[in-house]
Amino acid sequence: MITKLEYERAKAEAARMIRAAGVVITEEEAGKVEVADFGLGNLHAEGAQILTFFCTERVAAKVIALFPRQTEPEHWHPRVGDDPGKEETIRVISGTLYFYVPGAGEVRAGSVPAGKESCYTVRNERVMGPGDQITLEPGTRHWFQAGPEGAVLYTFSTCARDVLDGFTDPNVERQTRLDDGV
Amino acid sequence: MITKLEYERAKAEAARMIRAAGVVITEEEAGKVEVADFGLGNLHAEGAQILTFFCTERVAAKVIALFPRQTEPEHWHPRVGDDPGKEETIRVISGTLYFYVPGAGEVRAGSVPAGKESCYTVRNERVMGPGDQITLEPGTRHWFQAGPEGAVLYTFSTCARDVLDGFTDPNVERQTRLDDGV
Repeated sequence: MITKLEYERAKAEAARMIRAAGVVITEEEAGKVEVADFGLGNLHAEGAQILTFFCTERVAAKVIALFPRQTEPEHWHPRVGDDPGKEETIRVISGTLYFYVPGAGEVRAGSVPAGKESCYTVRNERVMGPGDQITLEPGTRHWFQAGPEGAVLYTFSTCARDVLDGFTDPNVERQTRLDDGV
Repeated sequence: MITKLEYERAKAEAARMIRAAGVVITEEEAGKVEVADFGLGNLHAEGAQILTFFCTERVAAKVIALFPRQTEPEHWHPRVGDDPGKEETIRVISGTLYFYVPGAGEVRAGSVPAGKESCYTVRNERVMGPGDQITLEPGTRHWFQAGPEGAVLYTFSTCARDVLDGFTDPNVERQTRLDDGV
């Protein structure tokens, strides 16, 4: 849970970062950036700011702004009925992104959020810069973290059903709640 | 058919335009921009320069650079087996784009390429600027043209099988051929 003020500040800062990264967005889009604290109440440590360009039954394109060292919690995109699950390509626009997938390795450049060792289980690290991209098959556990200057990235995918994503951390709630009821 | 020199010049100019529009691409990507004259041999009138970020069996993301007044010929994305056909969202990054879909209307801001009236049958015009986007259902005939300053745009879609696209102009060949054999 975060305050409305925190939500609005994060939204404005994310829109500023997205534009500073060279991504042209409309005023209307700047006003609809989603701030996700994943129900953990510690936005700048674990959270993400997400602008959806569009999302149809077949394709979605979004821009994600991450504050310095902000981490999107470990998650995966499960099968939904006939859909094998979301396939996703992440492409970095600005900043440095530490990206984690299954496989041998350890967290070197990035860092697991304090006290959350059990919620970040995949440790195969990739350090990504502008223009780097990675495609994830459905069901692949992954998490990512911005470097010290923050990061802006694209996510291009099949149909996105974020509320059905699986998260390693049992405390995650995908829908952000505001503590002053708006 | 175009010459190798024309191809290389168009590729370099397209990479320059893409970067000038604020899109970060790698050197490798700059080197693999595809120049498409659609077999018409008149690249600057009818053609497109296309950079594929990625293309999987489910999703594709590309950047298209159009020179001033350059026109991508009228086409549509047909059903392919079980696939209902490519669904595509075009999003303008820089410049002005005149976009044509079925429906009442006429070509006002843009212009049909000289002598090609019969090859451009849909005339419902939309004038698009940076941040504007349009989603096309599979099978929808469409064509588009850059304004006087050229244009750079994204195309986000389901699986792209460009060589299977249908074109109104029977002279179109989707694969570009070089007249000096490279």
